[in-house]
Amino acid sequence: MNAPSKRQLNIGAFLMRHGHHVAAWRHPDTDLEGNVFQVFKRQVLAAEKACLDAVFFADSVALTNGVPALEPLTLLSALAAVTEHIGLIGTATTTYNEPYHVARKFASLDAISQGRAGWNLVTSDNAIEAQNFGREQHVGHAERYARAREFYDVVTGLWNGWDDDAAVNDKAHGQLYRPGSVRRLDHHGEHFSVAGPLNVARSAQGHPVVVQAGSSEAGRTLAAATADVVFTAHPALPSAQAFYRDIKQRVAAIGRDPDALKIMPGLFAVVGQSEAEAQDKFAVLQELVQPEVGLALLGRMIGNFDLSGHDIDGPLPELPLTNDGQRSRQQLLTNLAQGENLTIRQLYQRIAGGRGHFTVIGTKQTVADQMQQWFEEEAADGFNFMAPQLPGGLDDFLQGVVPELQRRGLFRTAYAGSTLRGHLGLPKPGRAHA
Amino acid sequence: MNAPSKRQLNIGAFLMRHGHHVAAWRHPDTDLEGNVFQVFKRQVLAAEKACLDAVFFADSVALTNGVPALEPLTLLSALAAVTEHIGLIGTATTTYNEPYHVARKFASLDAISQGRAGWNLVTSDNAIEAQNFGREQHVGHAERYARAREFYDVVTGLWNGWDDDAAVNDKAHGQLYRPGSVRRLDHHGEHFSVAGPLNVARSAQGHPVVVQAGSSEAGRTLAAATADVVFTAHPALPSAQAFYRDIKQRVAAIGRDPDALKIMPGLFAVVGQSEAEAQDKFAVLQELVQPEVGLALLGRMIGNFDLSGHDIDGPLPELPLTNDGQRSRQQLLTNLAQGENLTIRQLYQRIAGGRGHFTVIGTKQTVADQMQQWFEEEAADGFNFMAPQLPGGLDDFLQGVVPELQRRGLFRTAYAGSTLRGHLGLPKPGRAHA
Repeated sequence: MNAPSKRQLNIGAFLMRHGHHVAAWRHPDTDLEGNVFQVFKRQVLAAEKACLDAVFFADSVALTNGVPALEPLTLLSALAAVTEHIGLIGTATTTYNEPYHVARKFASLDAISQGRAGWNLVTSDNAIEAQNFGREQHVGHAERYARAREFYDVVTGLWNGWDDDAAVNDKAHGQLYRPGSVRRLDHHGEHFSVAGPLNVARSAQGHPVVVQAGSSEAGRTLAAATADVVFTAHPALPSAQAFYRDIKQRVAAIGRDPDALKIMPGLFAVVGQSEAEAQDKFAVLQELVQPEVGLALLGRMIGNFDLSGHDIDGPLPELPLTNDGQRSRQQLLTNLAQGENLTIRQLYQRIAGGRGHFTVIGTKQTVADQMQQWFEEEAADGFNFMAPQLPGGLDDFLQGVVPELQRRGLFRTAYAGSTLRGHLGLPKPGRAHA
Repeated sequence: MNAPSKRQLNIGAFLMRHGHHVAAWRHPDTDLEGNVFQVFKRQVLAAEKACLDAVFFADSVALTNGVPALEPLTLLSALAAVTEHIGLIGTATTTYNEPYHVARKFASLDAISQGRAGWNLVTSDNAIEAQNFGREQHVGHAERYARAREFYDVVTGLWNGWDDDAAVNDKAHGQLYRPGSVRRLDHHGEHFSVAGPLNVARSAQGHPVVVQAGSSEAGRTLAAATADVVFTAHPALPSAQAFYRDIKQRVAAIGRDPDALKIMPGLFAVVGQSEAEAQDKFAVLQELVQPEVGLALLGRMIGNFDLSGHDIDGPLPELPLTNDGQRSRQQLLTNLAQGENLTIRQLYQRIAGGRGHFTVIGTKQTVADQMQQWFEEEAADGFNFMAPQLPGGLDDFLQGVVPELQRRGLFRTAYAGSTLRGHLGLPKPGRAHA
């Protein structure tokens, strides 16, 4: 084994119920009958054995694609009880939550896991979610981001209202906390009024890691100002490099240390013993895609448009700029379809796996080569791995690619610490002492 | 061991960070330094070993008494991962939550635990919580209960939007769920508009058990119509009997089976090898009560009044009827003070342990005798045990009183099933089939 290079990759496992390929659930690998928690538990234990930084769960507060999903905070708390090192990152929307609840639940997960929690801060961008929270239409883009920024301020304000060393636990003198170590917030803003203090103390990592995935102008501004980790979707090196450079420059411009924000693109990889075997594995999944499912996926990703009236073997129609769904993803996909002259069917097949994320199909060396190139050529500080199907697609990565990266000195062979912030090399936030 | 009688007790363990006595944290038993989750895990495993029906956590969405508390859903999910049989009941307020979130989180806990979740439905009744959610003052009593009723309708409507047998998991034909087995709710009411469907499927018990603790007229009406379990506070047999009779009559009057609602008063018990040892154990705790802590506890319990200006060794002043805090608890305590001519100090000492709940200090036989009397004389279907301090006060109960009840055939010696609904003998709700 080579001596580790100075800088190493950070790797998360982005888990979904059946895997990321839209037809994953039809794959023979997928366990549809087992208890969902037990299924995830086996995957997370495998990821921890491979020393991954974290597992990551997306979320939707609606039944958006016919597949139910456990709520991330409850699922991650259960996983916290059966793991010791791996980070636990969950998504919670700022659009239909209250900041006190979000601050508290993540602080609670952080306490239970002894400093391994991460909050993926998102905004909710579709009518399907809106209609579960008393609205006919979703909230507009600018308004969502203004609310998200204030939401972040309240949540971190509540977390930082406790000093690290608040507890004195003095039974004899009847004093639990040092006076002045727990402070009210008294926030009065445009969207929220929150008095505080929070009723959960600090964790071993201070407070949870903050993750974001916005790619729009407003999303980048928010991420540069507030995120510890940025997840992002790029199909190829140049756009990933441009994004990486832009975010790091924005971070530096406001006086933050660029190394204190980690950029981790999604990576959808199908790993085989040979290139041909990898292609065959991918073909198995592609053949399981039902046209109506492919159309629905594509419709959602270009901004919640119904494509069912269009010729599946004709070109993508002209679409108005979406305010519903992810604008930058819509742009990425329309550019792809126009640039390569793809039919609707070809386009949905192209996104049936990685949904526009960096996609590699090949041997463990091929995948490791690509990751190394992105890492060394300033497109990524690490990756959020998206298994095609579970558990097989994850096992292929953990047992093939991760050891190859370790052999190259690009990834840890043992955990050096026990907090997520420690794995990511991030500084501890807030006030340590009075 | 006697053959079990036809009807047996249900017993829950109502856990708080240090125990229920207001000075519990100063007791030598209490572990202030350990990881909170690990501390609770040991207690819950002990309760499961004793075959208790459930553990129960209260909640406050504010730092109300200077003691932080993990958020119940995250804590219970972590406990679900390390237990197999015991029920997991947590509190969530209807006043400052959205029903979609609450339905989802409890359904998620129910899935993770394979049918052991319970939701303690409460309303929030103080300004300290209100101020964390954008309000200067708490919501009024009638308004809270109207919202709670509609909240319940939405949550159970979402839960019952899935059939028990929805999953078909047909990979070959590309069908995950039977058509028609997952339904929208399309609720449009005074407080909420929620489209649904929920994005979590049914659990082994159908959906979570619903628990309530309101004792006011509005609280009783709501409980009779909707609750599976009612927690309640009564210092003595007659008031417990009257409450039991009233609730069971209300249940029957609206056509529900009275046996399908279990009434479980709180029980604060200090257990000793002898009566004298039990009294000594209680005295240790009473001597640890700081006057300012006792005054603050009393002030909260009579409706959030500040008593610090009054002579601690004088009588309780005349107080207006509270809209803030629990009205029925205020009534109970003012009656107690007037009836026995208690000073403020004597009154807070009286509630420093059980806060007005049924209190027994004695041997395991004494405690079991009292429980048996309440059970046989129609004051209780079971009890929610409140340990004075943890873990010692719980261990005394589990290792002394529970075996005594088992010896008398009043409590199970092994779990017959694996769901909370099964332990409680409650029917499975909702639609099993299309």
